[in-house]
Amino acid sequence: MNGSHGSVHPVEEIPTTDVGDAAPVIRMKDIEGMPGTRGGLALRCIQLGFAVAAFSVMAASRDFPSVSAFSYLVAAASLQGLWSFALAIIDIYALLVKRTLQNRPIVSFFAVGDGITTTLTFAAACACAGITVLIDNDLDLCSVNKCAQLQSATAMAFLCWFTTLPSFFFNYWSLASR
Amino acid sequence: MNGSHGSVHPVEEIPTTDVGDAAPVIRMKDIEGMPGTRGGLALRCIQLGFAVAAFSVMAASRDFPSVSAFSYLVAAASLQGLWSFALAIIDIYALLVKRTLQNRPIVSFFAVGDGITTTLTFAAACACAGITVLIDNDLDLCSVNKCAQLQSATAMAFLCWFTTLPSFFFNYWSLASR
Repeated sequence: MNGSHGSVHPVEEIPTTDVGDAAPVIRMKDIEGMPGTRGGLALRCIQLGFAVAAFSVMAASRDFPSVSAFSYLVAAASLQGLWSFALAIIDIYALLVKRTLQNRPIVSFFAVGDGITTTLTFAAACACAGITVLIDNDLDLCSVNKCAQLQSATAMAFLCWFTTLPSFFFNYWSLASR
Repeated sequence: MNGSHGSVHPVEEIPTTDVGDAAPVIRMKDIEGMPGTRGGLALRCIQLGFAVAAFSVMAASRDFPSVSAFSYLVAAASLQGLWSFALAIIDIYALLVKRTLQNRPIVSFFAVGDGITTTLTFAAACACAGITVLIDNDLDLCSVNKCAQLQSATAMAFLCWFTTLPSFFFNYWSLASR
C-alpha cells in the first residue's frame, strides 16, 4: 500500500480545496445577532422588553377579557416573553463560559422555536390591529373603548415581532449555510 | 495529445473531489418546490387558486367595503394572486426552455417577494380572523352578518399563506446554502 506513494502530487491539491470548504462555517460563527453572541443577547432583551410591555398594557385594559383577540395577544406576548427570557439566559451562559451555540440540533431548535413564537406574536398583533381599526376608523367607537391603550398594546406586539424576526432569520440562515 | 493518455490514473482522482465540492449546488437545484421545478409550479398554482378563492369570496360579501380589514384582505389576496401568477409564468418558461432559475439575484428577488406577499396575506388573514371571531364568539352577531362567507374567505387566505410559506423557505434556504 505504501509503495504507491511516489506520485503524491495530485493528493497535495485536495487539502487546499478542503480549506475553501470550511471557510463559510467559520464566517457564520462570527455574525453578531446569532445565539451566544452579544448582539443575540441584545436582541433577546429588546424582544423581552416589548413582550412585557404588550402584555402589561393589554392586561391592564378593561376590554381584554371580553374580546378573544385581546386575550390571545396577552397569551402570545407571555409565550414570547418566556421564550426570549429563556434564550437570553442561554446567551448569557454561553457568553460567560465562552461556548459557541453553533451546533445543528441547538440551532434547529432555536429556529423552530423562534419561527413558532414570532408567527404567534404576529398573528396576535394583526388580529388586534384588525379590531382596533374596526373600532376606531370603521365604527367610530373610540369614545366608549380605550383605543389608545389597545393601539399601544398592538404596536408593542408589532415591535416585539419585528425584533424576533432577525433572530429567526439568523438561525435559519445559519442552519441552511452549513 | 492522445499520446499522454497512458498514466491517466492520478488525474482521475481529482474530478471525484470536484464532484464532492459541487454536490450541494446540484442537490439544491434538484429539490422540487424551488423556482423552475414542477413542484414549484404546482405550489404557485395552488397559491393562485387559494388567493383567487379568498378574493372572490370576500369581494362577494356585503360587508367588505365597510370594514378596513376585509378590504385589506381583498387587496392582499389580489397582490398574492398577481405575484403567484407571474411566478407561475416564469416557472412554465423555465420548464419549457429547460433553464434553471438558480442564480443569486433571481433567488434573492423571489425570496424577498415571497417574504413580502406571504407576510401581507398572513396579516390580512389574521386581521379578518380577529374580526370574525369577535362577531361570532364575542358579540354573537352572526344573525346580522354573513359569518360563513367571512370565515371561508379568511380560511382561504390562511391556506394561501400556508402554501406560500414553502416557496419562501425554499428560496431563502437556497440563498443561504450557496
